[in-house]
Order: sequence, then C-alpha cells, then structure tokens
Amino acid sequence: MKKIITISREFGSGGRTIGKRLAEELGVPCYDSEIIEKVAVESGFAEEYIKDKGEYTQPSLIMGLFTNRTLYTGPSNEDKIWIIQCKIIKELASKGPCVIVGRCADYILRNRDDLMKVFIYADIEERAKRIVEHYGETHEDPIKRLKDKDKRRAAYYQHYTDMNWGASRNYDVCLNSSVVGIEKSVKILKDIALNAD
Amino acid sequence: MKKIITISREFGSGGRTIGKRLAEELGVPCYDSEIIEKVAVESGFAEEYIKDKGEYTQPSLIMGLFTNRTLYTGPSNEDKIWIIQCKIIKELASKGPCVIVGRCADYILRNRDDLMKVFIYADIEERAKRIVEHYGETHEDPIKRLKDKDKRRAAYYQHYTDMNWGASRNYDVCLNSSVVGIEKSVKILKDIALNAD
Repeated sequence: MKKIITISREFGSGGRTIGKRLAEELGVPCYDSEIIEKVAVESGFAEEYIKDKGEYTQPSLIMGLFTNRTLYTGPSNEDKIWIIQCKIIKELASKGPCVIVGRCADYILRNRDDLMKVFIYADIEERAKRIVEHYGETHEDPIKRLKDKDKRRAAYYQHYTDMNWGASRNYDVCLNSSVVGIEKSVKILKDIALNAD
Repeated sequence: MKKIITISREFGSGGRTIGKRLAEELGVPCYDSEIIEKVAVESGFAEEYIKDKGEYTQPSLIMGLFTNRTLYTGPSNEDKIWIIQCKIIKELASKGPCVIVGRCADYILRNRDDLMKVFIYADIEERAKRIVEHYGETHEDPIKRLKDKDKRRAAYYQHYTDMNWGASRNYDVCLNSSVVGIEKSVKILKDIALNAD
C-alpha cells in the first residue's frame, strides 16, 4: 500500500479537487493550504507571498545571471521558504498516511518507499474554462495566464529539484483529467494506492 | 468511448504485454509486428531492418550536421520507412477499434477524436531484469543497453514528431508498470477507454 500520495498538478487541471476527493475516499488528511499556513508561521512571511514564492519562479531567479543578484548576499527569500517548506512537508508525511498537493512534495519525499507520485494535467482549453469559473475573468487572456504559470512553475521545479516538471518518469501515474474525468481519476488512484506494494 | 488506443512504451517496461492483454480484454486487434510486416512488404526492406529503423534514430541522423549527409541526396531509408509507416498505421486505424503498440502511432493519429494515448514506463532495474529474462544476456550491461535504447528512441521521436518522448502532456494516461503492475494497468486502461467521451 502507498501511504503518502503527492499530487503535482497543472494550474486549472482539477488536481487539487482530485487530491481532496482522494483523501476523503481514503479517510486520510489532504495537505494543501495547511502547508502554506505552517510555512507562514515559521518564516514570518505572509501567506499570499508564500503561495506564490513556494511554487513559482520569480523573474529574479531566471534573470539572476544578468543582474547584481549574482553577487552572493545570502539565501534569498525563495530559498528560505524552500528550506522551511521541505521541513514541514517531511514532518506532515511522518505523521501518517496523507495526500499532499503541489509544492514539490514528490521530490522532497522521493526517498520514501510508501510514496505514490501523481501528476494531473488537462487540455489547455478546459483549464482556461475552469480558471475563469473558479477565479473569475481578468484583463489577461486565460490561456496566456496559464502558459505563464506553467513556465514559472516548471522553472521553479527545475531550479530546486533539477528535474523536468511533467516528465512522466518523475511520477508513478500521470492522468489527463480532461480525458479521464475527475471522479474516475479519484477511483483509479485509490485503487492503485491500496493495491501497490 | 476511445476506440483507438496507442501504447508508447519504454523497452522492457511490459508495455507490449499490456497492449496485447488490453486488446484481448476489449476484443479488438493489437497491431505490433503486423505493422513491421506490412512496412516490409511495401518498402522492400527486411523486417529486422525496419524493426530498428522505424523506432530508433541512427547515429547518422544525429551526426548529420557534421557529415556529408547534410548534402541533400533525397530521402533517407529512415524517411522512406517513416512515410510508409504513417500510411499503414492510418489504414489500420481506419479499419476499426484496435490497440497499436509503439512506432509513434500516438503522433501519427493525433487528430482523431476517438484516440487514447498511453505511455508505459518502469523502473530501470525492473526493465533490466525483464530484458535479460526475455532476450537473454549479452556482453553489454543491460542498464547501459536500456539507456542507449531510450536515447535513440527519444531522438527518433523528436526528429519525426518534434515533441519530447515521455513528456506526460503528449499522452492521456502514463503508468509506471513497476508500481501499478501489468494486470492492474490493463484493468485501468480498459476502464478509461470504455468510459471516456
């Protein structure tokens, strides 16, 4: 049985909903906003700031090579958040079976034998529809917003884990929720988690 | 319902077995060696030659830029095989529901609405064990053989499709057969194929 399940997901793919429903089905906690709250308490940074800095690369990280930031001035805020985030995710996983959504938990917990790593993605048109429904319209085209988010999330993942975000080999199961559906994904993941060695 | 299922797979991952079992479960044909036979008849090349050239890049394709091959001398044997392979795969899919293993069928049939694209991979130690069991020992280390095969297959896929082989977004479902298991993978894929829109 796989006791710790990490759900990495594209923004707007329904991955968070799948994580919450899966945790309900398995009768275990789902950690998502709890992680942000805990990192906020421990780091002193605001939750909104962590929400963004704990999963998305900032332009400064990409541009580092071309700016004064190459002059080492100690760990950046992103690095401080990363270190606290790693510690909190390991602590949560050590408490017992759970589902953890996002925040590179797949990489942070990679050495555990009881880990199942899931990646949820979806067709970009469906993701665009979903983010407009959930978060409302903005002045920016939703597809452009998604592509920008994907790029920053992939760069963050690459920076801290040195792996490609979304490369199937980093995960045990990858599902396109547009094709498989939210409830079917929950059913499949539950089945695998309960039956895997 | 998804009527045409393509199984892309890492060498030694059990993807071919999953494809065959899935086809049995669905009561549809599984095309694998049939494609090679048909390409052989149509092209005049030997089956063994096509088996390799229809999925793996040759060093000449990688080295092309640095050799006389940049001097265009008409389509290469690889290009001729690719064109015939595309035609045959489209013909087979047009005959009715089926499972097609390998040979970039996911890309060749990408415009069909009734297509389900699957990627099967596995932990390298299990793949090494499997290829030694199936194909016997050689003088070369099995893990080195696998890494070489992966590299050549990825380069072939990239060359003809301009996409990354194994990037989850190219597929609808990606399963690590070491974690999910062969029979459970068959069950999951059958369930998705029969229930997807």
